[in-house]
Amino acid sequence: MQKYADFVEFTDVTPSAALSVARHGWRAKCLQRLIRLDLPVPRTVALPADTVRAIAAGQLPDTEKLVAVFGNDLLVSVRSSPENPDWGGPGTVLNVGMNSDRHAALTASHGAEAADALYLGFVQSFATHVARLDPDMFMAPTGPTALATALAAYESETDTPFPQDPARQLSDVLRSMARAWEGTTARLLRQAKGAPAEAALGLVVQSMALGIGPGLSGSGTMQFVDSITGAAQITGRFRGQSQGRRAAIATLYLTKDARGTSLEETSPEVFAELVAYGAACRKKLRDEMQLEFTIESGRISVIDAARVQRSSRAAVKIAVALAKDGIISRADALLRVEPRALSELLHYQVDPRSKRDRVAHGIAVSPGAATGRIVFTAAAAQASAARDEACILVRRETAPEDIRGMHAAVAVLTERGGVTSHAAVIARGLGLPCIVGASDIRLNARDRSLTLADGRLLREGDVITVDGSNGEVLLGAAQMLEPALDDGFRTLLRWADNVRDIGIRANADTPDDARTARMFDAEGIGLCRTEHMFFDEDRLTVMREMIFADTSADRRVALERLLPMQRADFTALFGIMAGLPVCIRLFDPPLHEFLPHDREGMRELAEALDRPLSDVTRRVEALSEFNPMLGMRGVRLGITIPEIYEMQARAIFEATVEASKSGDPVVPEIMIPLVSAQREVELVKSHIDAVAAAVKTEMGAEFTYRLGVMVETPRAALRAGEIARHTDFLSFGTNDLTQMTYGLSRDDAGRFMGSYVSQGVYAEDPFHILDVEGVGELLLIGASRGRETRPKMTISVCGEHGGNPESIAFCRAAGFDYVSCSPFRVPVARLAAAHFALLDPKGRDRD
Amino acid sequence: MQKYADFVEFTDVTPSAALSVARHGWRAKCLQRLIRLDLPVPRTVALPADTVRAIAAGQLPDTEKLVAVFGNDLLVSVRSSPENPDWGGPGTVLNVGMNSDRHAALTASHGAEAADALYLGFVQSFATHVARLDPDMFMAPTGPTALATALAAYESETDTPFPQDPARQLSDVLRSMARAWEGTTARLLRQAKGAPAEAALGLVVQSMALGIGPGLSGSGTMQFVDSITGAAQITGRFRGQSQGRRAAIATLYLTKDARGTSLEETSPEVFAELVAYGAACRKKLRDEMQLEFTIESGRISVIDAARVQRSSRAAVKIAVALAKDGIISRADALLRVEPRALSELLHYQVDPRSKRDRVAHGIAVSPGAATGRIVFTAAAAQASAARDEACILVRRETAPEDIRGMHAAVAVLTERGGVTSHAAVIARGLGLPCIVGASDIRLNARDRSLTLADGRLLREGDVITVDGSNGEVLLGAAQMLEPALDDGFRTLLRWADNVRDIGIRANADTPDDARTARMFDAEGIGLCRTEHMFFDEDRLTVMREMIFADTSADRRVALERLLPMQRADFTALFGIMAGLPVCIRLFDPPLHEFLPHDREGMRELAEALDRPLSDVTRRVEALSEFNPMLGMRGVRLGITIPEIYEMQARAIFEATVEASKSGDPVVPEIMIPLVSAQREVELVKSHIDAVAAAVKTEMGAEFTYRLGVMVETPRAALRAGEIARHTDFLSFGTNDLTQMTYGLSRDDAGRFMGSYVSQGVYAEDPFHILDVEGVGELLLIGASRGRETRPKMTISVCGEHGGNPESIAFCRAAGFDYVSCSPFRVPVARLAAAHFALLDPKGRDRD
Repeated sequence: MQKYADFVEFTDVTPSAALSVARHGWRAKCLQRLIRLDLPVPRTVALPADTVRAIAAGQLPDTEKLVAVFGNDLLVSVRSSPENPDWGGPGTVLNVGMNSDRHAALTASHGAEAADALYLGFVQSFATHVARLDPDMFMAPTGPTALATALAAYESETDTPFPQDPARQLSDVLRSMARAWEGTTARLLRQAKGAPAEAALGLVVQSMALGIGPGLSGSGTMQFVDSITGAAQITGRFRGQSQGRRAAIATLYLTKDARGTSLEETSPEVFAELVAYGAACRKKLRDEMQLEFTIESGRISVIDAARVQRSSRAAVKIAVALAKDGIISRADALLRVEPRALSELLHYQVDPRSKRDRVAHGIAVSPGAATGRIVFTAAAAQASAARDEACILVRRETAPEDIRGMHAAVAVLTERGGVTSHAAVIARGLGLPCIVGASDIRLNARDRSLTLADGRLLREGDVITVDGSNGEVLLGAAQMLEPALDDGFRTLLRWADNVRDIGIRANADTPDDARTARMFDAEGIGLCRTEHMFFDEDRLTVMREMIFADTSADRRVALERLLPMQRADFTALFGIMAGLPVCIRLFDPPLHEFLPHDREGMRELAEALDRPLSDVTRRVEALSEFNPMLGMRGVRLGITIPEIYEMQARAIFEATVEASKSGDPVVPEIMIPLVSAQREVELVKSHIDAVAAAVKTEMGAEFTYRLGVMVETPRAALRAGEIARHTDFLSFGTNDLTQMTYGLSRDDAGRFMGSYVSQGVYAEDPFHILDVEGVGELLLIGASRGRETRPKMTISVCGEHGGNPESIAFCRAAGFDYVSCSPFRVPVARLAAAHFALLDPKGRDRD
Repeated sequence: MQKYADFVEFTDVTPSAALSVARHGWRAKCLQRLIRLDLPVPRTVALPADTVRAIAAGQLPDTEKLVAVFGNDLLVSVRSSPENPDWGGPGTVLNVGMNSDRHAALTASHGAEAADALYLGFVQSFATHVARLDPDMFMAPTGPTALATALAAYESETDTPFPQDPARQLSDVLRSMARAWEGTTARLLRQAKGAPAEAALGLVVQSMALGIGPGLSGSGTMQFVDSITGAAQITGRFRGQSQGRRAAIATLYLTKDARGTSLEETSPEVFAELVAYGAACRKKLRDEMQLEFTIESGRISVIDAARVQRSSRAAVKIAVALAKDGIISRADALLRVEPRALSELLHYQVDPRSKRDRVAHGIAVSPGAATGRIVFTAAAAQASAARDEACILVRRETAPEDIRGMHAAVAVLTERGGVTSHAAVIARGLGLPCIVGASDIRLNARDRSLTLADGRLLREGDVITVDGSNGEVLLGAAQMLEPALDDGFRTLLRWADNVRDIGIRANADTPDDARTARMFDAEGIGLCRTEHMFFDEDRLTVMREMIFADTSADRRVALERLLPMQRADFTALFGIMAGLPVCIRLFDPPLHEFLPHDREGMRELAEALDRPLSDVTRRVEALSEFNPMLGMRGVRLGITIPEIYEMQARAIFEATVEASKSGDPVVPEIMIPLVSAQREVELVKSHIDAVAAAVKTEMGAEFTYRLGVMVETPRAALRAGEIARHTDFLSFGTNDLTQMTYGLSRDDAGRFMGSYVSQGVYAEDPFHILDVEGVGELLLIGASRGRETRPKMTISVCGEHGGNPESIAFCRAAGFDYVSCSPFRVPVARLAAAHFALLDPKGRDRD
């Protein structure tokens, strides 16, 4: 026997009713706000979450009191009202209360067609969502017999006639919706959107406003900005007699439109009233709202309102406009934009409204989209660029020798690799859309083709689009949206700069990078890797001569030829950065990266150097390493072959003097890579000091410089107290530090990282999200020991993690001075930093 | 003007004089002890270090009082007396006081020849060491005019006649010796032997006992043990009339000798007296002493005594004998033997008395010496062993596929590599003499030859000797000393075990290793690497089938064939260790180590597996890694391909049941390698637990096991608190931990480690001596966090460092339970541990 309990609690939604979002949900609260604004909202009651939970648990709702509110001939809708609209919830059920009596009455008042449509809609809805019958049995029929067929189907499936008691109908609907909320799928879906395990559902019961009748009748939605662009523009839809099938006016445009009649023209007063409601909502609900309304013979009912769905670019524009109109504070505007979303705006994007012919999928490692012809080699990319043809470089994975090809391409796609593979790192630096680890394609290097998962073959020259924002490879040219570096974007970031309390620099290796860094208002260069400067063809030749030099004197001859090129590099960088700090990391990679690895390349090199091939192969072999990551590179090269760092120091200092002539004095920052012992720093410092003294004498100029260490080995972090004796700054290279702390090569981790993260072995890919527990502890140890020795020590992070909001939060809390990230991450970093300053103003260790 | 100061302080060496080693030096103190023993020591005075230092600084010694002691016709020797005899010091000057008058008197009393010889000797000594004249001018002349020629040469070189005033002579000699001590070379030499910068010199002035005259006269040395073997045996020399040239008895054997007359026969009383002096010295000076004596007409003077120089094997024998005779305590005996020296005794040694034809030099990484024919491949080594011919495997460097060749060889020599290269690690494990990084040889792989630094060519089959104790490669077969695992050795180590307070286990992978471990009384196996078990030819084939399996089911089929072999491995180990703990590390290396890397090998493999070659090359390529050290190995394999660990766990548990039947119940220890996150341990533990439960059910047996983690990544050390929740023990793998803490591959470090250590960038090679500051801190962090979670956690070190005395000291102070090292290091470790327990009884954190 069903027990009708007496407990159904509900609240009449009136201006003064005690409603809370936590208990009654966002929709109940939103409707109350509309009522307070005097909008014509039909009678509404709200069921709190505890009541809904009790119903789901088996308590039977005593709907008598509810029915008393709406009258015995009630006709209501039931809508879900979770705390957060993003958490979903069971779909709305309309026209609860429809039965034969009501159908007869409506047939008399509005005609059979409208009455049939309403009743049929309810039967379909009730049968599928409440009685859980097969939807196919109720969706098929159309025409005048449809209602009867549906009612018969219901009866034959359930062995009972369709319920006629409105109270019983309502009770069933409430129970059905309450239970749907507790389903496993619904639970997983909302938890994926951040809902807590105990998230509860409120329900809203509202008198139906039918939107049928003589004169202007129908239903629609209206919003006042474009969801994609954020531009002020009325969009939405209006369908006349919308619950009927053959309405007098099927559809009206909302605003004047060349394509047909519009609400604005046919009913200007109604239109104006809706616009006024929209304006009131925007002002009082402090956001852009979409209104859902019905019109019955010219009388408007606002039945619901919700935040306008918006793209990232729209979010920026809306937030800035609201703040400029004084509706929200600048702080609110900042907090309304998700920092990571900004990265989409810096690049071309595939228009979300266009169709996508997706043919492959990989890891999205550098955002933005680009269309071009497939090329399979760096040389082909350069040739393509020379012909002014956009091309997309497709490789198994990239290596330093592909860099010029990457420069020439509009996007990069690799079969292997992970978020911090070579291709990913370089592409992010260049702002190139990039997908790596596209394991469903297979590259056929020999015949220059690409096999898709479905067996189709793509050849060099075929056009594809790489969507680096979501990892999709599309066939052909997709429709694009332009970057959105507009006023709204710049304004928002200016506001962000005013509130954030941690510095943001950019990693920039080339003048192009530096210009991008300035464009995004980075506060300097936090990491200038100098090795990329040696891969240009003319420099590579000299580098190789240096590598093959048998004596220190010969090495110096080669390095002297590189000196003017390096000096020009630095002069250009100092010029572009115009007084902002530039932190230059001395030469880091192992020398074998500059040598060819294939037979052909070695033969060419032997010819170029006029040496026997055996010399070349022997040198290549001698320089090869088992674990290059842990080998002869960084400061180890700097100490073993001191001529390289001496040349670089000279180039830096001569450029310093040069650049200081035409502007503010430049104070270069010089950073030593891969340090593991204090004495390494002492030795390099003594060499650099000697070069500085020599340049001062030779050029009759004065300058200073700051020396620092890139903390990349666990030992450097542990010994930071000693290392700090000789240094002005410490910058954590979190890429290598992560590799060494985990004992995990980022280049080799791709093979199992996916399964590791999915099994929860690692909570996150530590190359993507800073490992706060392990690597993070080393950062804290390094920073505190460094500052113990030298309290004014500048501390920063310059690894790939630098631009991640999580890392910024960590660095800010730890009192670091700045983070440095690729130029295209700078806007994200600036906004994320502002968020943390606003949300946790006291959570900074320093200042 | 020279200022004669009044400060020359000296002490008459009498039984009650206030003399200290710190102030007057070891020799002064030693002579006092001889005097206290009533030995006939000539009148002796000691100048303290402060006086000698003042003399060196320019104060002129007022020798009048000194002269007063010895009389105006003084004839004295001056000897250096530093605090420690190992610190060297200027050579002895004899016959100070010789002049024309004295010469005339001696001519009258002892004849012209003896008088000339004494005077000439003094002139030569004075001219070269005091006046610093060219020795050639004074060494050449012989015959009756030699003295006159030398005196004339002195006068012509210095423009002054040879000094005749004994006080002046003495003053010059003292100043010269005082200054020599302060010379740069002398300073560096003694600091290399451990002298502090402020080490000072005392001087001893002693009446000459001339050793000339009628009857038994002469000088000699005598000791009572053999310096090489330590056996009780009188050795030394006696030269009659030794300061003269044509003595009646040129040389006497000390003891009865078939080759000629002996002191024992000709002068039994004198001989007996000397033997008695020796016995007194041994008893009262508590060591084996070498006596220096003169005999004048049968009257003995003991002019000096010093500790007998001794080889390591002699040191052991002497110390044990002294303790057994009740002369020193067992603790003293233990402390008198340098632990590292023991490793020489475990192996054949090149006899230090034999001639060495050294043709190359490298890093001595595994002690002992062996002679054999050169082979250049593992296959040749095995063929050679099959013919029962000793061979030495010479490779550029070794790889896992060389292991069987190493087993077959008597020694290993590689052109490349460092102290922890593959060759070094394996050779130490096998107890094979090994030299790596012999960069002065050049291997010509194709024509199977070896070019020496001087251009000579050695070919396969040529005989060489590898001295792994000092890194020398000798041409031909050298004379050898046998290992010294005798009673003395065993006794000493038994005493060591009674006092040490940290456990010593052995790293042992094979039954042979385990037997060695037992022979050296290791307390268990601290690290059994299981991967070496898969390189046997039959197993390798199955391993490769497993690697090529396309499905989990196929993998299991292959692994099921390995199961009985693994079970047999463990049953054998448990049997040999008979109840001692055995810690088995689960499979660790990357799978590509089991695949061929050359075209030929791949072709063979394709044939063996009946697969197309392209399959094989693709798999080899897919498994290749940029940084294998940081790649897909250890627990990462264990989680990605769980079948491997499951097979190993089953083999361990089945062997446990098997071995427990015939002896004490076995409690195997299972260790997970390369852990970086707690969850890895949880996952593996759940698999192992399931296997254990299954085996218990199937076999109807009960057993327990202990699970542990090999802490090899910095992150595992940092997160040891969490990891400890699931583990019974933590064992630090200091090899990998050092690599990751420094960001330095041990295989690639060889190229610059030498220059790094010589420039003092690293104080020591961290792969050789545990880096206490960096890696050590991670050990302390890991241990303390582990024990915070689980106070009874067993903590140990099982890396290469385990057997180093420095590491043992560190681990003991940190309260670790045991160290584990290669079997041949176990004796060193046992003795070193005893030393620390004796020297610093309270310096242990636990117990």
